Amino acid sequence: MSMRSLIILVSASLLVGAAPAKKPLTPNDIVAGSPASAWRTIDPDDLLVMDLANGGRVVIQLAPGFAPVHVANVKALAKGNYWDGATVYRLQDNYVAQWGLNESDRPWPAGVTAKPPAEYVRPLKGLQVKPLGFADPYAPGTGFSAGWPIAYSSKQGWANLAHCYGSVGVGRDLSPDTGTGGELYAVIGQAPRQLDRNIALIGRVIDGIDRLSSLPRGTEALGFYKDKAQYAPIARIRLASDMPHAELPAFEYMDTSGAVFASYVRLRANRKDAFYDRPAGGVDLCNVQVPVRKKG
Amino acid sequence: MSMRSLIILVSASLLVGAAPAKKPLTPNDIVAGSPASAWRTIDPDDLLVMDLANGGRVVIQLAPGFAPVHVANVKALAKGNYWDGATVYRLQDNYVAQWGLNESDRPWPAGVTAKPPAEYVRPLKGLQVKPLGFADPYAPGTGFSAGWPIAYSSKQGWANLAHCYGSVGVGRDLSPDTGTGGELYAVIGQAPRQLDRNIALIGRVIDGIDRLSSLPRGTEALGFYKDKAQYAPIARIRLASDMPHAELPAFEYMDTSGAVFASYVRLRANRKDAFYDRPAGGVDLCNVQVPVRKKG
Repeated sequence: MSMRSLIILVSASLLVGAAPAKKPLTPNDIVAGSPASAWRTIDPDDLLVMDLANGGRVVIQLAPGFAPVHVANVKALAKGNYWDGATVYRLQDNYVAQWGLNESDRPWPAGVTAKPPAEYVRPLKGLQVKPLGFADPYAPGTGFSAGWPIAYSSKQGWANLAHCYGSVGVGRDLSPDTGTGGELYAVIGQAPRQLDRNIALIGRVIDGIDRLSSLPRGTEALGFYKDKAQYAPIARIRLASDMPHAELPAFEYMDTSGAVFASYVRLRANRKDAFYDRPAGGVDLCNVQVPVRKKG
Repeated sequence: MSMRSLIILVSASLLVGAAPAKKPLTPNDIVAGSPASAWRTIDPDDLLVMDLANGGRVVIQLAPGFAPVHVANVKALAKGNYWDGATVYRLQDNYVAQWGLNESDRPWPAGVTAKPPAEYVRPLKGLQVKPLGFADPYAPGTGFSAGWPIAYSSKQGWANLAHCYGSVGVGRDLSPDTGTGGELYAVIGQAPRQLDRNIALIGRVIDGIDRLSSLPRGTEALGFYKDKAQYAPIARIRLASDMPHAELPAFEYMDTSGAVFASYVRLRANRKDAFYDRPAGGVDLCNVQVPVRKKG
């Protein structure tokens, strides 16, 4: 095999087998070699499962600890079949995919708070954040709490979920509207951290983000599709806990407070394996990518 | 129109008209209201034009000031029709699209340096970098030079092009191979800044990145397509300066050393327009997105 036939660009997020002895470990070696005790199961009541009509499933982990009223709305919307006939109607490159009913006056199902409070930040207290320890242009501190990427201020006592690739938030009108939860977006580009503390995040895509990110981009302003024929129809959106037991999707995330995750972060910030000559000595919060995987 | 019919998530990168008086300006107001003197034309000899066989054009601005031998190679490859029959053969979500001949032993055309030096950094001296002025986890300093996002160390005297969304680099094998230029990749996700100073960047996509980012993701390791039938064929790759005069694409970028760009950056870091309540007070290098547009 010639040199040129092997030309690759090794990804930091690929799962590879454990490296042979003496070779520097990669972050993925850490994931592959981690014990079961390094992982935490995600409650199926916090999994939102979106099936696209043309095939493909998008699984979203909800974050009730950060936007409880918005997350309760999303759960009530799922249980109330609010999204029947919903579509992905907006694809803006390097920004977001957005779905829901768009221009609709369908009434809210029971249990939905039409005008939730602005759950953009929460108290830092109680989060037990593991600091990342590297500079960030958007917040005094960053780190991880129970698997989530967090920005915070120890001095002012606030914390927020960070807008990273795959983050899911609640579309809204201009401030002070906060959105109800019927229109959701997922980040499909460079982390738009300027949205932190300005909009409610309700979770993140943990499986199937490529089903959204590979959709054609909309050509209208803000990436809306020009014709409704371009909309990607959604077959259904359910909570995993409402699915038949045999179909129940199960996921786990790496415990971000443990030593295994600390090793993973250290290697993300200091790549020394065969592809890399110059470790950065740092890593961006949104480039750490907390490991999440299917269980079993 | 009901509130819900207007649910939007305003993009920082949308071009909108000049705002009415008294409303806080957006970064795009700055772009829309900028004088012609705030822009610099891109030399057509530094534009690489890739036409996909299924329609769609991807335009790449080359950066000869950062990787001169690799850029000279890319120009010689284009002139030598090296990429006849090339394809996009790798799509890894939140990472890269990669194209070229993949497994081929086609000889290099005249003028190609088969083993270029490792042009991963260059001297800071001579770049006249305009510092961004916000913290960065990957380098002591960041800023802009002639329209390019730069990471640098004043103390050690080096500078490099930063890996941002749209950056184009040279695929290579494991270190110390540097790649020749026949296999190229474009970043289609969160800025993989860990690649900075470890691989040669030769430019950035300035038009048509959505033609790459919306391609289906490959399901094999590293995002390679499983079947060759999935490859996206490339009709041709040319330098703009080799195209018929009537077809010549013309682009310009905002002068990053000027006052207009400084205003743009200030607003990117401090959104105060109607959608935003809490300005971040900072912005990531790769989230600034230097304005580039078609000319005329």
